[in-house]
Amino acid sequence: MTTVAIIGAGLIGRAWAFVFARAGMAVQVWDKSPQVRASLPADLALMLTETVPFGCAGADPDGLIGRIRICAELADALQGADLVQESGPEVPRIKSALFAQLDQLAPDQAVIASSSSALMVSSYTQGLAGQGRCLVGHPVNPPHLVPVVELSPGPETTAATLDRAEAIYRAAGQVPVRLSREIDGFILNRLQAVVLAESLRLVADGVVSVQGLDDVIRHGLGRRWAFMGPLRTISLNAPAGVLDYLQRYGPTMARLADDAARGDAFSEAAAQAVAAGLPQLTPEQIRDDQHWRDGELAALGAHLAQRRDKVSAPSDSLD
Amino acid sequence: MTTVAIIGAGLIGRAWAFVFARAGMAVQVWDKSPQVRASLPADLALMLTETVPFGCAGADPDGLIGRIRICAELADALQGADLVQESGPEVPRIKSALFAQLDQLAPDQAVIASSSSALMVSSYTQGLAGQGRCLVGHPVNPPHLVPVVELSPGPETTAATLDRAEAIYRAAGQVPVRLSREIDGFILNRLQAVVLAESLRLVADGVVSVQGLDDVIRHGLGRRWAFMGPLRTISLNAPAGVLDYLQRYGPTMARLADDAARGDAFSEAAAQAVAAGLPQLTPEQIRDDQHWRDGELAALGAHLAQRRDKVSAPSDSLD
Repeated sequence: MTTVAIIGAGLIGRAWAFVFARAGMAVQVWDKSPQVRASLPADLALMLTETVPFGCAGADPDGLIGRIRICAELADALQGADLVQESGPEVPRIKSALFAQLDQLAPDQAVIASSSSALMVSSYTQGLAGQGRCLVGHPVNPPHLVPVVELSPGPETTAATLDRAEAIYRAAGQVPVRLSREIDGFILNRLQAVVLAESLRLVADGVVSVQGLDDVIRHGLGRRWAFMGPLRTISLNAPAGVLDYLQRYGPTMARLADDAARGDAFSEAAAQAVAAGLPQLTPEQIRDDQHWRDGELAALGAHLAQRRDKVSAPSDSLD
Repeated sequence: MTTVAIIGAGLIGRAWAFVFARAGMAVQVWDKSPQVRASLPADLALMLTETVPFGCAGADPDGLIGRIRICAELADALQGADLVQESGPEVPRIKSALFAQLDQLAPDQAVIASSSSALMVSSYTQGLAGQGRCLVGHPVNPPHLVPVVELSPGPETTAATLDRAEAIYRAAGQVPVRLSREIDGFILNRLQAVVLAESLRLVADGVVSVQGLDDVIRHGLGRRWAFMGPLRTISLNAPAGVLDYLQRYGPTMARLADDAARGDAFSEAAAQAVAAGLPQLTPEQIRDDQHWRDGELAALGAHLAQRRDKVSAPSDSLD
């Protein structure tokens, strides 16, 4: 039985608890806030209610919450852990102090992963005895509905650590993606950044409306990207494959990339232009929309999983 | 009854014929090649066979092919047309000569749209009497499975032309997106270019594998983008909405955009690195994979349409 310690039970931490418990693993959750710990059972019950209708609550939904133990003491949560998933605040000083504690208290077999999207693991594990067992395991919010996990090692992270983390995430039903080394923003946010920069510029310049911009992706490229990704997409967009595509369209794409928006696209004026093109929502209305989004993510995940079970690409058998 | 003339019946032209006939419109197709005209009935029958199982063949699949008339003469195809959809070769000289003919022969009420992805309408309609009724209506391949159409006016295109084109595309079940002015690459390929540049660089630098790169989008961001688009996505990723998001994460995103790959990422070395990470396929295997992709696009389109009918976002009622 794999045991996972969840350190920090905010939005991300509690979704991680759900992910591992859904896969039948033993989960031990710690949060420094008694209020967070107290509200956790109700939060988890809500996640269960919301995922069961989409078949996204695993093979044993009734037993899911029973596999999650809420701990008042950090050391208790770490007992017997194979994976420690840290999801605390993105504050360097707090991260460093927490990792020192985790490395001291976690059992020898544990790998220690941070959910951090912004900080590189080398920056808060310097000098730890167990620096080699630390890595970033960056999820997409919410991880129980979006399966990718970016595994980013620091220079000291061992290959065995990456192997163990990858195996546990995969056993939990996630899709781990290994980076060969640390890089600012990892992969996902680098790709998001270039799309947002260009989108903000096009909207701020009045070339297209916010809804038009979203429609181009949503009713256009996003459809392919949701089941193939951008590289496989282009490999099927020319008669002789990806080299053929890059020979035909590479020069055009290069010209567009050279002309693409840079960091200064994230201006106050662009922010105002984007905000003006979206409905003005109260925080409560935003929560309602997030709830709708999570339902759509669950429904889409169920659709994609069902398709994969039914029809695989002819070339998949060649891998 | 709306009548649409399809000029050029290659992959894109014939899919356009399918789109408009599916919506109950009268379609008149011309292609200069007798072989293309001769094979068209079988090509359309295949598209019908492939879309019926997904419910993507419209309200009257049995009558669809009967609404498409194949014409040996250009003037015949243009008779009574409300919309002329040109899908000829992307060669400036050919495009100019063809548009001169179309403007001369098409009836007064017709708007004339090019499917061109690479050429701006102003470059091949200079000096035409009907320059004001010409525009780009850029589809995504294949348009009968991916609904977005980018409407790009030239400086001389009239607002009435855009209005009429938009209304016809929308009546045909597509999702038209208006640009306020011509811009190289329109919207879709500008966004694709920045994603591809960064993806090629990350793969060529050995940071991530081709499959890992695709997995990050496919099992990550692509899921949200397929039903919300990138701007609405970030508007739900901070408690107080899009301004809150851009205040929190804008500086990080700006840093990543400043560091993003440029046109030189489309190098021969990057092309080879990407090709090495994908299965080597023969043109026939590529066609099989394209066939699989089209089935997945149809299935995903049906899923998304069904969700939209069932559950809309709470804020949609505020629009």
